[in-house]
Order: sequence, then structure tokens, then C-alpha cells
Amino acid sequence: MTASGDRPIVALAMGDPAGISPELTARLMASPAVATAARLLVIGDRRVLDRGARTAGTDVAADAIAEGEIPGPEAQRPAFLNLRNLDPAEVEIGRPTLAGGTFATQNFAAALRYADAGKVQAVCFTPFNKQAMRFAYPGYDDEIRFIAEIIGFTGRAREFNVLDQIWNARVTSHMPLAEVARHITREAILAELELTFSTLRRAGIAAPRVAVAGLNPHAGDGGSFGREEIEIIAPAIAEASRRGMAVEGPFPPDTVFLTALKHGFHVVLTMYHDQGQIAMKLIGFDRGVTMIGGLPFPVCTPAHGTAYDIAERGIANVGASEQAVLLAARLARANAKAA
Amino acid sequence: MTASGDRPIVALAMGDPAGISPELTARLMASPAVATAARLLVIGDRRVLDRGARTAGTDVAADAIAEGEIPGPEAQRPAFLNLRNLDPAEVEIGRPTLAGGTFATQNFAAALRYADAGKVQAVCFTPFNKQAMRFAYPGYDDEIRFIAEIIGFTGRAREFNVLDQIWNARVTSHMPLAEVARHITREAILAELELTFSTLRRAGIAAPRVAVAGLNPHAGDGGSFGREEIEIIAPAIAEASRRGMAVEGPFPPDTVFLTALKHGFHVVLTMYHDQGQIAMKLIGFDRGVTMIGGLPFPVCTPAHGTAYDIAERGIANVGASEQAVLLAARLARANAKAA
Repeated sequence: MTASGDRPIVALAMGDPAGISPELTARLMASPAVATAARLLVIGDRRVLDRGARTAGTDVAADAIAEGEIPGPEAQRPAFLNLRNLDPAEVEIGRPTLAGGTFATQNFAAALRYADAGKVQAVCFTPFNKQAMRFAYPGYDDEIRFIAEIIGFTGRAREFNVLDQIWNARVTSHMPLAEVARHITREAILAELELTFSTLRRAGIAAPRVAVAGLNPHAGDGGSFGREEIEIIAPAIAEASRRGMAVEGPFPPDTVFLTALKHGFHVVLTMYHDQGQIAMKLIGFDRGVTMIGGLPFPVCTPAHGTAYDIAERGIANVGASEQAVLLAARLARANAKAA
Repeated sequence: MTASGDRPIVALAMGDPAGISPELTARLMASPAVATAARLLVIGDRRVLDRGARTAGTDVAADAIAEGEIPGPEAQRPAFLNLRNLDPAEVEIGRPTLAGGTFATQNFAAALRYADAGKVQAVCFTPFNKQAMRFAYPGYDDEIRFIAEIIGFTGRAREFNVLDQIWNARVTSHMPLAEVARHITREAILAELELTFSTLRRAGIAAPRVAVAGLNPHAGDGGSFGREEIEIIAPAIAEASRRGMAVEGPFPPDTVFLTALKHGFHVVLTMYHDQGQIAMKLIGFDRGVTMIGGLPFPVCTPAHGTAYDIAERGIANVGASEQAVLLAARLARANAKAA
């Protein structure tokens, strides 16, 4: 880490300009909690930012920096890298556009290159619109794939969803439900558990406890509605225990989060995307953070989307975005200590 | 309906004796809300009931009746049909047993025969243990199958989950997750929607509005993670609209319940068991009711299970059981009016 281990530099890429991202960026730049935890390096277009600040009704005093520069250890105000890559007049509010996707992919790529070069210790971004990203970058599949391509990463990275009380890791993610069951293997579950434990430890949880969900209704009900719990998931849990991980399950999917919250588990490992996302969004829609683990640096973003329906209304809730930056800063500090 | 349309007779079968069912039965018999809404006809063993009453710390003043008899229109106390089918000494608390399953299946079958004969207008039961049911009745698959066999019903019946704010209907239920996708057809969705609308109308909701969930993460994200939304679900919704049903969707599965609660939908139609159950249990674990619709009479039960872990501790929450009886009574009254 360059300096000031207590206050790592977090690069914040401005996301899709047609929703609440500009407003969220302005609110983050004015957040005392963020300023205390991190030196923010915001990447985007000053005109779009100013429009977000007007929406938010906040001031965005920032130190302009040139590409490749970073804020010094004592910087009190956020740094702003103005890529001059979007005239707000080109933005049609509430719609995914090529211009919006180009803006967001350029900001994100710049933030990732900063992190890849070791100049910043974490990356955050305000929400993207996937369709707009695809207009701009036709191979855009999801954030993990994009990151891997930009920084030439070939390892195993995975999305976690994080609330104050609980983390959610998953064995499968963005795939058709019809394909989920055949991707549930002992190897996949064990790999996910290993990554979960190393990520949680890096996040400062010394002795993580993980609750594992079953795949089928009632966790198969003794084999009546599917045998994956008996033949795959339970053996994977037994093997993880042998390797020293504190893992329990498989629990019935419809109560695993209630069980985890009640009994103090740190993480629920779900078998597929919605098994976790349905629960996480109900537990804390306004506070959920998506964190990409397994990369050389942490990448965090609010779990919610672009909220086109409330763009430029000045009512966006910055809570999840703030949690994203705070988690990124905490992970960056832990990385610095481990290095 | 025999008499007293305002206060239908609800047969209540005592469920698994090794958990909280005896305590819940006693609490229901002492509930003023239940007494106001229904004439309760409880079926079980007096010794097991007395043990439940001791656990609950309540009195169970009841009028004993003989098999085939019913409480009169002015009955103020619950009626009790004592089948003398279980000595509490035979019950091992906290475990599924043949004796417990025999007790529960006999009580349930007696209640169903009462309803099939038109002597009671609805059936409720306190929680069963499926394994115990199978010990006693080897072909026991689920409640719907059992009911169909006992009363010779050959129509289409389906489980709904009901909270005060919201109902949940589902296209598939107790099947392995691996088999769900191939059961999602336009015909299945339309049949479920027809049944949902007729059931909701019978429950007194004159103009139900239904939110339909997608099958895949992000509802397929424009076909990126599965095409069922485009090829099957959206066309089924369009056809339902043509038939005059107020149906919208497909919505992303991880926010469909938040959407439904925010925008006043009465029902969420989910594609599979846990898509709905994860949400319903988080929204109202202590109040959720399971209702079987499509039969000649309503059947309701609390959505939670036998709670072996808190058996005989006197701390069982009767809320969901009370809601089950109240819903059954409401449906019975609506049936009487429609007849």
C-alpha cells in the first residue's frame, strides 16, 4: 500500500448516468463516513457529476487530478479524475443508451487499471445497466468477466452479497435455473467454501461459520424431492469439516436465512442466485452490498440497480453505496496488514 | 351449509403429537377469535389434548360428541370427538413415530370424511411430520395426495401460502429443483392462474391482482440467463390478460415480493416452491398459513412445522394456527354464500 494504511484509496467509477448513479456519486463524495474510512478517487465526467450534485442538493468539492495520479495521504477532499467522456445533454434519463454504457465502461476500466497498477487499494462503482454496458462493450457478460478481461485475471472470482448481519455466497450464479442442478458438485461446493473462508478471514472475521442451503424443497425431505442433499451437499460439508472449516447443513432453503440469523452464522452458502437474493433483498434491500472476492483487490457496489424510475428526483438512498465503500475500505486495510 | 352461516363448523385434526401440535390445539380451543369465527370440532385423543392443555396452561372445556355428530348452531364451546387413538405414554417427544403418524392420519382422515359428507364446512390441522405420516401410511406423499385418496377427489388441487398482506401460488411445488424448468409450460401457468383467480374470489377478493415471477435470475435478463420468460411466461401472461385476468410480469424473482407489497398485488405466482417460500417465511414466519384450494371445501394449516425443538415447553406461538382457522372460516362462509 502506498501510504496511510488506515485510509486506503478507493477508486469509485461513476455508473450508468441515466439512473441514480450521478446522485449517489455526489452523495458519497459528501459522506463523512466515507471520508473517514477512505481516500476517494472518483472517475467520470465533471458535468455529469455536477448534475448529480444538483439532484442530491450537495456540494462536491473535489481535487482535480490527472490520469495516473492519486490523492496524497493527507487528502481531505475526494480526488476527481475528469475523463470528459459524457455530455449530460446526451443522456436520456431512464433509458439504457450506448453513450451511457460507454461512459460507465470507460470509468470502470480506468478504476480497474488503477487497482491493477497498485495505485488504489479497492474499486467501487455506482450501479450499471447491463444492457447499456452491452451496447458499449458487446462481450459484456457480467462484472467478473469484464474485470478479468481488463486486468488479464485468470483465477477464480465470485460475487458475495453482504449485509451488516450476514454474507451470502453461492455455488452458481448467472445461469438459467434449468442448468443449476447439474452444476452442483462436491468440487464446486468445496471450492466455493474455500474461497468463502479466505475472503471472510480477509474481511476480518477470524472464525467464520457457514450455513449451507440444500438445493431442493425441504432440503429434499429425506430424498423424496431430489437426492443432491444426500449424495453431493452433505458429503461436501463433511469434507469441509475435515478440512477444518466450520460448516453446517444442508438446511431447508426456505428457512436457512432465518436459521443463520438466529444462530449467528456469518455466511449462508446458497446453491443458486435467487435462493440467496430473494432473502437478502427482503432482509435489507437498502443496505445490501455486492462484493467480488478472489481478485487481487476488492471490488464492491451496492446490490440494488440503477433505479431509472427515481432518476433525478433527489430521493436516492445512499445507504447501500456507503456500505459498499466502507466494506471495500475494510477489506483493503485487511489486505494491507496481510501483505 | 347446515346452519348458522355466519359461524361455519371447522373440523380441526390434531397433528403430530411429538411436537407443538397438542399445545397449539389447546390454545386454539381457548382462542376467543376462533370461537367468534367458527364452531370448532376437534378430532383426536382426549389424553393427548389434556397434555397439550397442561403445556399451554389453558383450560379445554369442550362438549364431547360421538363420531358423525356435529356441534349445534348455538354451541359456545368447541366440540371434541375423542377417537381414543393414542396414549401419551406412547409418544416419544421430539421424534417421528409410527404411533404419532397413525394418530395424525386417523384424525385427518376423520376430519376429511366429515367435510366430504357436508357435515363440516372446512378442515384445519395442526402440523404433521411427513416421516411419521409415511410410517403410518406408506403411500403418503403430501397432504393433497392423501386428501384425494381419502375422499376420492380427482380434480386439480393446489397449495397456496397466505399472509395477511399477500398470497403465494406456485406452478410447481414438491419436486426436485432439477425438474422444475421442464414443468414450466404455458398450460401449467394458465391453469394455475385460473385456479388462483377462482380461489381468491371465493376468499372474498373481488378483483385480484397477480404478480408473476420469472424463472431465472433477473427474469432471464433479456434472454441472457434462460429464455423461459420470453417464450413461455410472458405469452402465458398475455393470454391470461386476454381472458380478463389482472396479471403482470414476469418480474425478477428476487424483488417480486417487494414489488407486490409496494404496489398492492394480492398474489405472487411463483414458478417453484422455494421462490415463494423463502420470501413468505421471511415476511411472516409466525403468521403464514398454507391453504389447499381447488377442493370442494377449504383445508388450512399453519405454514410452520411441528417444532420438535420446543415441544412441551409452553412457548409455541398460536398466531399462524389461529390465522389458519380464521381463513378457513372466511372461505367456508364465502362458499356458503356462493352456493
